Amino acid sequence: MKTLVIISHPTIKDSYTQSFLHDAQADFNDVTWHPLDILYPDFKINIKHEQQLLMHYDRIIFQFPLFWYSAPALLKKWEDDVLVRKFANAAHGGYLRHKQLGMVITLGVPAKNYQPGAGEHFSLSELLTPYQALAKKAGMQYLSPFIISQFFYKTPPQEAKTLVDYQNYLTNPKPFGLKNKIKWSLDQLKQYAPKDKVKKIVFDSVIKQIQKNQNQLDDLKSQINMIKRKDDQ
Amino acid sequence: MKTLVIISHPTIKDSYTQSFLHDAQADFNDVTWHPLDILYPDFKINIKHEQQLLMHYDRIIFQFPLFWYSAPALLKKWEDDVLVRKFANAAHGGYLRHKQLGMVITLGVPAKNYQPGAGEHFSLSELLTPYQALAKKAGMQYLSPFIISQFFYKTPPQEAKTLVDYQNYLTNPKPFGLKNKIKWSLDQLKQYAPKDKVKKIVFDSVIKQIQKNQNQLDDLKSQINMIKRKDDQ
Repeated sequence: MKTLVIISHPTIKDSYTQSFLHDAQADFNDVTWHPLDILYPDFKINIKHEQQLLMHYDRIIFQFPLFWYSAPALLKKWEDDVLVRKFANAAHGGYLRHKQLGMVITLGVPAKNYQPGAGEHFSLSELLTPYQALAKKAGMQYLSPFIISQFFYKTPPQEAKTLVDYQNYLTNPKPFGLKNKIKWSLDQLKQYAPKDKVKKIVFDSVIKQIQKNQNQLDDLKSQINMIKRKDDQ
Repeated sequence: MKTLVIISHPTIKDSYTQSFLHDAQADFNDVTWHPLDILYPDFKINIKHEQQLLMHYDRIIFQFPLFWYSAPALLKKWEDDVLVRKFANAAHGGYLRHKQLGMVITLGVPAKNYQPGAGEHFSLSELLTPYQALAKKAGMQYLSPFIISQFFYKTPPQEAKTLVDYQNYLTNPKPFGLKNKIKWSLDQLKQYAPKDKVKKIVFDSVIKQIQKNQNQLDDLKSQINMIKRKDDQ
């Protein structure tokens, strides 16, 4: 499975979060980092090139900080220019059908602020409806967004968890659900030898997750056994 | 009350709808037509100028065709550049507090397509949530959007109704509700003498609307009288 990460961030070069995410995906051959602000600082998109590029990927990711409750303008320009009707609309035999659309959203405020009664008043599901509608129109599978809030305040263990979850979101063919995550984690393990720093973080986190999951599985199994024993009595 | 109409439409010069709307507002001294694509074709916004401009208006209108379920990229660029935190956030003492935000949205498909089970699957209320959230954050009053769908297919009477309703949306301090519309219509009447073509259309439509409203009022009055008579018996 090949993944294209389309990043829109006007000050991407100064962003600690984006630099961290960049490093997190750098070792994956099947992931392509595609920073629009570096490629098209003048807002003049190479439409044919972008359309050709999209054809080669199974999972398209829109990655951006939330600006006025949606993507920065450059990603919108990319949408308006590249996703023309004949290319993108499923009803017109579009080229994006059966691909996946993922969203990696970075927030400056806590994610819990995005709900009625809290600071931002609206949920992220409500605010991101236009992207869900885009996926629907293009015949794409919309993936639940991956939200990174207040990355700056994260502790090293929280950073490590974000790194692994982000890699899972980008590269796991089935990124959701405990069983799928375990399978992906074990696949990662097989490839990794804990030499450099980033890999060491991943290694430790994956081991921890597997252990945690294993505990949960064991717990569930023993509960099922108890129920079975009761039924047998 | 002063109104600023901020238009975002990449081919505004070729748009019959935008040309029609332009003519519809041309006679109103308190309405300013502000076409971003003509002012900023290179996406380089004069931020200070735009901020200064906004200060002079009570009602700000975002007017655009729906592109991928939101405004074309240039309006997003305008939002990202002009509405910086210190200028726009109500919590930071923003300059837009107590102003109104209106939306004039043109659609290429019928408005009824925007609902679950129909062609576009999502409602316009859902899709436009980011603008509602923007208004909330800026301390602005969000006006129910004014939707113009498939303008090209409208008959002359439908065009005339759109023209009057659009003028009402732009210039009526209280644009919603029968009573407010009648008051506004009468105000228009006082100013108009049916000389040129556009004014003639307005004149006839307003007269028709007042007559229709008057009929409804009379109908309601007679119903109330009937109820009263029953109570007296």
